Amino acid sequence: MILLLKTGAGAKGKELLEKKLRSFGIVFRTEKLRGREAVVLECYPSDFSRDSLSGSTCVEKMIDPSEEYFLASLERKPRWRRFGLGAGRTWKIGELLIAAGPCAVEGEKSLEETAQAVKAAGGRILRGGSFKPRTSPYSFQGLGEEGLKIHRKAADRHGLLMLTEVLDRLDLKKVYDIADMMQVGSRNMQNFPLLRELGKLEKPVLLKRGFGSTREELLLAAEYILKGGNEKVILCERGVRGFNPAGKHILDLASIALLKEMTWLPIIADPSHAAGESRFVPMLAKAAVIAGAEGLLMEVHPAPKSALSDGPQAMTVGEFRKLARELKDIVRLSSRKDGAGK
Amino acid sequence: MILLLKTGAGAKGKELLEKKLRSFGIVFRTEKLRGREAVVLECYPSDFSRDSLSGSTCVEKMIDPSEEYFLASLERKPRWRRFGLGAGRTWKIGELLIAAGPCAVEGEKSLEETAQAVKAAGGRILRGGSFKPRTSPYSFQGLGEEGLKIHRKAADRHGLLMLTEVLDRLDLKKVYDIADMMQVGSRNMQNFPLLRELGKLEKPVLLKRGFGSTREELLLAAEYILKGGNEKVILCERGVRGFNPAGKHILDLASIALLKEMTWLPIIADPSHAAGESRFVPMLAKAAVIAGAEGLLMEVHPAPKSALSDGPQAMTVGEFRKLARELKDIVRLSSRKDGAGK
Amino acid sequence: MILLLKTGAGAKGKELLEKKLRSFGIVFRTEKLRGREAVVLECYPSDFSRDSLSGSTCVEKMIDPSEEYFLASLERKPRWRRFGLGAGRTWKIGELLIAAGPCAVEGEKSLEETAQAVKAAGGRILRGGSFKPRTSPYSFQGLGEEGLKIHRKAADRHGLLMLTEVLDRLDLKKVYDIADMMQVGSRNMQNFPLLRELGKLEKPVLLKRGFGSTREELLLAAEYILKGGNEKVILCERGVRGFNPAGKHILDLASIALLKEMTWLPIIADPSHAAGESRFVPMLAKAAVIAGAEGLLMEVHPAPKSALSDGPQAMTVGEFRKLARELKDIVRLSSRKDGAGK
Amino acid sequence: MILLLKTGAGAKGKELLEKKLRSFGIVFRTEKLRGREAVVLECYPSDFSRDSLSGSTCVEKMIDPSEEYFLASLERKPRWRRFGLGAGRTWKIGELLIAAGPCAVEGEKSLEETAQAVKAAGGRILRGGSFKPRTSPYSFQGLGEEGLKIHRKAADRHGLLMLTEVLDRLDLKKVYDIADMMQVGSRNMQNFPLLRELGKLEKPVLLKRGFGSTREELLLAAEYILKGGNEKVILCERGVRGFNPAGKHILDLASIALLKEMTWLPIIADPSHAAGESRFVPMLAKAAVIAGAEGLLMEVHPAPKSALSDGPQAMTVGEFRKLARELKDIVRLSSRKDGAGK
Repeated sequence: MILLLKTGAGAKGKELLEKKLRSFGIVFRTEKLRGREAVVLECYPSDFSRDSLSGSTCVEKMIDPSEEYFLASLERKPRWRRFGLGAGRTWKIGELLIAAGPCAVEGEKSLEETAQAVKAAGGRILRGGSFKPRTSPYSFQGLGEEGLKIHRKAADRHGLLMLTEVLDRLDLKKVYDIADMMQVGSRNMQNFPLLRELGKLEKPVLLKRGFGSTREELLLAAEYILKGGNEKVILCERGVRGFNPAGKHILDLASIALLKEMTWLPIIADPSHAAGESRFVPMLAKAAVIAGAEGLLMEVHPAPKSALSDGPQAMTVGEFRKLARELKDIVRLSSRKDGAGK
Repeated sequence: MILLLKTGAGAKGKELLEKKLRSFGIVFRTEKLRGREAVVLECYPSDFSRDSLSGSTCVEKMIDPSEEYFLASLERKPRWRRFGLGAGRTWKIGELLIAAGPCAVEGEKSLEETAQAVKAAGGRILRGGSFKPRTSPYSFQGLGEEGLKIHRKAADRHGLLMLTEVLDRLDLKKVYDIADMMQVGSRNMQNFPLLRELGKLEKPVLLKRGFGSTREELLLAAEYILKGGNEKVILCERGVRGFNPAGKHILDLASIALLKEMTWLPIIADPSHAAGESRFVPMLAKAAVIAGAEGLLMEVHPAPKSALSDGPQAMTVGEFRKLARELKDIVRLSSRKDGAGK
Repeated sequence: MILLLKTGAGAKGKELLEKKLRSFGIVFRTEKLRGREAVVLECYPSDFSRDSLSGSTCVEKMIDPSEEYFLASLERKPRWRRFGLGAGRTWKIGELLIAAGPCAVEGEKSLEETAQAVKAAGGRILRGGSFKPRTSPYSFQGLGEEGLKIHRKAADRHGLLMLTEVLDRLDLKKVYDIADMMQVGSRNMQNFPLLRELGKLEKPVLLKRGFGSTREELLLAAEYILKGGNEKVILCERGVRGFNPAGKHILDLASIALLKEMTWLPIIADPSHAAGESRFVPMLAKAAVIAGAEGLLMEVHPAPKSALSDGPQAMTVGEFRKLARELKDIVRLSSRKDGAGK
Repeated sequence: MILLLKTGAGAKGKELLEKKLRSFGIVFRTEKLRGREAVVLECYPSDFSRDSLSGSTCVEKMIDPSEEYFLASLERKPRWRRFGLGAGRTWKIGELLIAAGPCAVEGEKSLEETAQAVKAAGGRILRGGSFKPRTSPYSFQGLGEEGLKIHRKAADRHGLLMLTEVLDRLDLKKVYDIADMMQVGSRNMQNFPLLRELGKLEKPVLLKRGFGSTREELLLAAEYILKGGNEKVILCERGVRGFNPAGKHILDLASIALLKEMTWLPIIADPSHAAGESRFVPMLAKAAVIAGAEGLLMEVHPAPKSALSDGPQAMTVGEFRKLARELKDIVRLSSRKDGAGK
């Protein structure tokens, strides 16, 4: 539980509050949360409640554990208007951010072909994994550092930003030194040591929602990064587990809209992982934009059938081009009316 | 299990087949399924399999129980192009079908106001419940037969079709005599005696997917109606239960697209029940159309805050008008490109 | 929303309350709920809240719609100690109630064999369906009235009670006239007209939780029956849908324990439908008893492999006998310690 | 996809196979999997199927990606009878393994009290977290290395084994050097770099199923560890996400039983995390044993109300003692009959 103190709360009031907390046997620490004084209760009796502090006049607000995405909450800050993507590029929120590329970096030639298509379609970010989290140990695990280099070159050749996944703290430096943006995958959303480390860095982090995680858990994962000081976090909705999915997962459209009412962090969607099959991707991509997604992360491959990873859900370059054109119409429609995405 | 016989299978082959089935102790009956000869196995040993009949040359195809939506399947028939809605009206598939109205018929005046709006917005069907399925026995249960009359008049005044829910066989005649189309609700999707009865009638049935049911179960429910001879079934996707819904349910977009690859029956969506809150309805409505929904069923109320039922998810007349305009753009976009909805 | 009035609330207070409600434009009715005066708000503005009535001194309690299982709630009544099963038989809660039999009544001979086993194992109720709800229209749909007669005779021969499913109001009289207890299946849990009708009758109703329904919805379904005056309702947990079930569904054990803290109605479990496969049934049956289930509903068949319905989940007579013996040990363990079910 | 070669497959046959694979453009490597020769296809066209290799006589079996838990599968090896827990202790499978302790190590005194109780109750493992994965960054994160030392001492004083969670590769050495067994938490089940590293070590790993993960994914996560050479993996079922959990999660009982048919790795259950509330823990613990769990991981705390982490789901020392006694009866019952767990 977090107790936010009133601005200008006097020393005496704070002293009384701390005394009271101690009398309950509560373990707490005081902390500055973006300029606000706060008392963080690390431990308190289960029977301790909001009412127990009703007389403490220096407390402005008590935040329950499940809502402790204090730094991430919309109350604290208006939504981003301009977001620094790194390498001096700025993303004007409202312009659909397109990040696309293969699931895994497989080689120079195939990435070059994809990079061209991403650039031509107005994309700004070239995605691609070199350290791959794969369900099976027998699946292709990525090219590692060699892949990072190939990725960097392809991105540079086309003036694209390089986005790649980082699996844990040990890989972080390798990835950080070369990439523009770092992706935290769905299976890693609650890799807290990694999140904490990313909070100390300056490059943008794309944080994907776990397929079995709630919105609140996603925001609390973001809070780990924000707490370290790194405010460049982009949230990504990518489908959740359900009892009868048509594709691999169900894209939780309403959560995209709801997250925009909860946080100032940008929200994009990954229709490729939600779909599982490429033929559903364009439809889910457009639907996500309608729902208010501010960007899209998509898998494109010059020859999906021979992709080393996730082939079935990757679009061909041609399908991607067609989709990019169609998305422009969707964006135009959405922006013509105020809040059409809501 | 259903054994579809080859066209022109001879008497001798069939005799041998039946003998073989009897030798396995199988209980079966022969049946004509839309002109095709079929042997329906009502009961067979768990260890009976497809291979057991490998030598029977008169069997064209064996259909497993979970895929027994034989009559509903796309293999049997191409998708509808023109669908008779009743009262001489035809729905040209491809033109977005709009059915809207209050959750419950509450009175003449408020329904009149809604009916006007539905008509003005290009809607063709006035929805409204007079026999309401309500989770709690203390909630408003509908006006019953009085409601049906009010509904009929309002629909007629504006040249709209009347769509209303039927709860069970005992109510059926009352509803059938007055309404143009009958709705089977999500909680009733597997009310098999009702489905069987609807199969004997001629008016269109709007069958909503159960919030805990699979696509296969939806198609098998439709199969009950089709088997009786009534082919005027419209399927309606309306959200499923998940572990962390943003609204009341999660709208299963990819299932809309997938159902269109499985069946020739038209598929519409109900964004109101998926949303649970009216502010998510327009977004889900548009997303459903993008996903390929051929129509929309929506809740509209002149004063949602005082609605007797489901107020929070009903749009105001103004919101509905705005949405109807915006939907036209979405439809235009979708139809401009071949298969953009896919 | 229900407003429970204080016992002995005066006419004046009630008048003021009603005036206040009218001023909010609320539609309400007064009702006696088991001897208590209550005001049932059928409709109220979404922005109406508990605070709006803070000054009304005659209101003892306001019950929110999702908690409107007022009649079913443990607050109103202690848990049953003796439950009249019909035909003069009493079930002393604490003695494990065993109801077993085939999914469907298939014929005199096979039912006789099962009935013997049920009796021998200490069972009191012979279950069996004659009107079967089947997912596919091509599956065996039950023997209908002929089945009821066979069922009655087999039950009588062994001094067992007859429990059978009723699908809708139209079948009700047929079933009611012959059976001792009526079952409402999972797919029918929210067949409200049927529930309402069952509330007017006197025989016990076994109400199964929908596989996609919440505990609150189950209790509200029971409330429909209780409201009519029939208090003989037995709840039955039978597994819910999840994203990766091992059997057909996941048996929600903790809900059994939790329901016992919510309602005074007896709670039993159906391990057969949760399991889907007979080899998991004994284990789930015992676990349910450990969790506090006060009875078990199980599928037994002399030759499961040739059962006309649900064969794979039926135990053989031998497996059932073995389980019945083992259950005695589990019950003994549980009863030796106070609250072992917790 | 893995191609298992026949024992004694000749050089010529292998050559032909490799040629064929190359002709399909497949990327593959040959590998020894526990003494068996195998060809692992890292990449193959989506349209490549089992039939494509029908003529290759040296292939004994083709294993699909979702079933690639080859090393973990029961086909490869019978279930463990004796499992080395470390520090020279052996666990005879069939004797219920009890691992208990606080969620987090909080201090010497409170851990001492718990350790005494664990020992007295016949427990063999003292669990406790010093590096805690916490949903919120404001929750207590564990005492780190200081906690490890306190934990080691308490375990040693009572002859218990020390089990603690490891969050990522960077913490691994610290934990490995001091603990007897390492726990991989639910949120970390797919931390593949960590799993791979654990595969190179020799101490036992307790791997918990992700709350949003399937059984197949759990087995594939174990496969990462086995592939490195470490066969000391214990699987732990701990509840999955559902739409209406009574506790925090639903304990997937049937999956415990099913996993025992799939793998030779021991399977235990964590009823504390499934329950979320301590009053459901004893019941779920017993049910898990009934389902076949070979051990239990439980949270015990001398004063749950003031626990720094997960207090509501921790049992008191007294509750734990009572449960331990009751479990003995359950085990006795289960072992008396062959396969009672089934």
